[in-house]
Amino acid sequence: MAAMRMVEYAYASPEVRAVYDDIMTTRKVDAVNNFWKVIANDPAALKRTWESLKQVMQPGALDPLTKELIYIAVSVSTGCGYCIASHTAAARKRGMTDEIFHELMAVIGMASETNRLATGYQVEIDPSLK
Amino acid sequence: MAAMRMVEYAYASPEVRAVYDDIMTTRKVDAVNNFWKVIANDPAALKRTWESLKQVMQPGALDPLTKELIYIAVSVSTGCGYCIASHTAAARKRGMTDEIFHELMAVIGMASETNRLATGYQVEIDPSLK
Amino acid sequence: MAAMRMVEYAYASPEVRAVYDDIMTTRKVDAVNNFWKVIANDPAALKRTWESLKQVMQPGALDPLTKELIYIAVSVSTGCGYCIASHTAAARKRGMTDEIFHELMAVIGMASETNRLATGYQVEIDPSLK
Amino acid sequence: MAAMRMVEYAYASPEVRAVYDDIMTTRKVDAVNNFWKVIANDPAALKRTWESLKQVMQPGALDPLTKELIYIAVSVSTGCGYCIASHTAAARKRGMTDEIFHELMAVIGMASETNRLATGYQVEIDPSLK
Amino acid sequence: MAAMRMVEYAYASPEVRAVYDDIMTTRKVDAVNNFWKVIANDPAALKRTWESLKQVMQPGALDPLTKELIYIAVSVSTGCGYCIASHTAAARKRGMTDEIFHELMAVIGMASETNRLATGYQVEIDPSLK
Amino acid sequence: MAAMRMVEYAYASPEVRAVYDDIMTTRKVDAVNNFWKVIANDPAALKRTWESLKQVMQPGALDPLTKELIYIAVSVSTGCGYCIASHTAAARKRGMTDEIFHELMAVIGMASETNRLATGYQVEIDPSLK
Repeated sequence: MAAMRMVEYAYASPEVRAVYDDIMTTRKVDAVNNFWKVIANDPAALKRTWESLKQVMQPGALDPLTKELIYIAVSVSTGCGYCIASHTAAARKRGMTDEIFHELMAVIGMASETNRLATGYQVEIDPSLK
Repeated sequence: MAAMRMVEYAYASPEVRAVYDDIMTTRKVDAVNNFWKVIANDPAALKRTWESLKQVMQPGALDPLTKELIYIAVSVSTGCGYCIASHTAAARKRGMTDEIFHELMAVIGMASETNRLATGYQVEIDPSLK
Repeated sequence: MAAMRMVEYAYASPEVRAVYDDIMTTRKVDAVNNFWKVIANDPAALKRTWESLKQVMQPGALDPLTKELIYIAVSVSTGCGYCIASHTAAARKRGMTDEIFHELMAVIGMASETNRLATGYQVEIDPSLK
Repeated sequence: MAAMRMVEYAYASPEVRAVYDDIMTTRKVDAVNNFWKVIANDPAALKRTWESLKQVMQPGALDPLTKELIYIAVSVSTGCGYCIASHTAAARKRGMTDEIFHELMAVIGMASETNRLATGYQVEIDPSLK
Repeated sequence: MAAMRMVEYAYASPEVRAVYDDIMTTRKVDAVNNFWKVIANDPAALKRTWESLKQVMQPGALDPLTKELIYIAVSVSTGCGYCIASHTAAARKRGMTDEIFHELMAVIGMASETNRLATGYQVEIDPSLK
Repeated sequence: MAAMRMVEYAYASPEVRAVYDDIMTTRKVDAVNNFWKVIANDPAALKRTWESLKQVMQPGALDPLTKELIYIAVSVSTGCGYCIASHTAAARKRGMTDEIFHELMAVIGMASETNRLATGYQVEIDPSLK
């Protein structure tokens, strides 16, 4: 048995419930994803991760949808299947259309290609870019 | 000797010059970056890569600045130093402020952290996310 | 058909059986994992990989549990699902508690975040660190 | 100009200085690394990152040296040159001998090899490991 | 619902069918893989990706089997399960024997190991290699 | 001081010299690369790594040049600058022409792009590929 059990709301400590409540209120949803239920096995990590994420993902110079697109780009590059599924769903909720999704994928694909070309060809950084 | 020489405009074939001209016209700049000068050793790759990039990066459902931010997110995740330098410069030209840059980095950082947590904890995808 | 069949002990050559026997004796288990049964299709690779692994994972300046934690850290960073499952189980056998597992995950998460920040912000190495 | 300037103590805001002071006190050093001086351009990120890092790296079920070894393992897997240099130095301060460093590298190397073998051979997870 | 529906030939636009026809003719197969059916949701991406791939994978200084082996090496390093499955099948069709597959995996494994050793030990590039 | 000193032949132990001699004889060169001089700080690792590498890279079902091309593909995907430089040089010695190098880079680039597309679009593996 390697995977961790999930901490369901009904059996959670007050400390964990407080974070779950804040997640549900902030995101206007009535349940938390498996990710949080697993992290909740380490209540300090649950609290720290949620508070950092909440701060980072709040609207600022970038709108919430753009932040989700960046999140997906990182998740695809890292190859995290869970994260791709959950942040693609989150982006849809924030208004990602099919057209935006396709453009996102196309940019990720091209960037991955030119990243490898620049690395493989050992291109030196232009003085003007330093 | 491992790195490739760079193909300077003055010594380039008409085929390569045509691509260089199109890059400079499209981007409103008067020189091409080292990346293109190195790829130009393979003229077919130069033409194919530029035409794909031009098509992918043109304004569409996403604006050019957002596309550059996604490009940076991928480049940081891949660890391509050249690409980070060149696309950070490109994003600046398209209006990236310090505030946007900081938010971009913060999202990339958080996504990288939660990507690893989801992977390491072997979180199963929620039925609602499938 | 892309995946390789597994070489079961009952049908294995004497050469392969000798490695399986050594794995089982060394690890005090009565069966080998699927990983070895698949690698066994290439008997030279089976022998080479096992002998290197045995040498590397033996107790030394670092104890076996610490080595397993490092193994997990690499496997999570690489995104190898099989390796995460098998080395998490191995670490449990060597005494990894839930508390250790949570701290391991927290360090992996933070390292992944600061790795990307250092890369994205293009931080120069301090002279004192060279 | 792509890289960010560094925020030196002498010119830092009281908010940034408070974090710098805490870093120096906690680590018993008399200066902060370039990493922090660059992140300090985003004071909220500086504070959030440091407080998370401080919490995660404090002694717990794992001792500080083991945590640094895990940090190095992640940094090598990510390919973050800055992070490898800074955390190798930090591990040295916490007692990493040459022998420990060599064993760390050997485990990282073997894990990277078997990660790819398990992935490339598409090994299915053993029922006993689920 | 996160994943995209697949565009089946029977319901595809003439533009998409033309690409499907070219894939089937070029590869001498009577159906296209799921990859293409999903990308086909973005017809411009389908056409661009297929035309680039066709050009890159055609026989040249390297034969088609060698190109497939390189494709597998990249896919294993990236950790793309779909790509490993599809390109392993493609390589089999182009003559990859079990012996070749084992040697391919062994090289990928060793390269992954020495890559991390060179990175972790921070080996400086020899002047003769520059 | 983070990087390891290099073990020069003149000051090496007989055990290390024996490996250096074998490397030079096998490769028909009169000096070993920095990689080996750094790994030599851990003589057991030097011997184990060299013997595995020698076995893996010997001519077999795949010729030495093809093996070097695969090595480069992995090194580019991992982003190991040292490894790209050293294996590009090694491939040149084994007959890699500019044309081969360009085709190698083009395949690596395309594979990196389609890897991300398949991952980001969450393409399911075709039953025929399992």
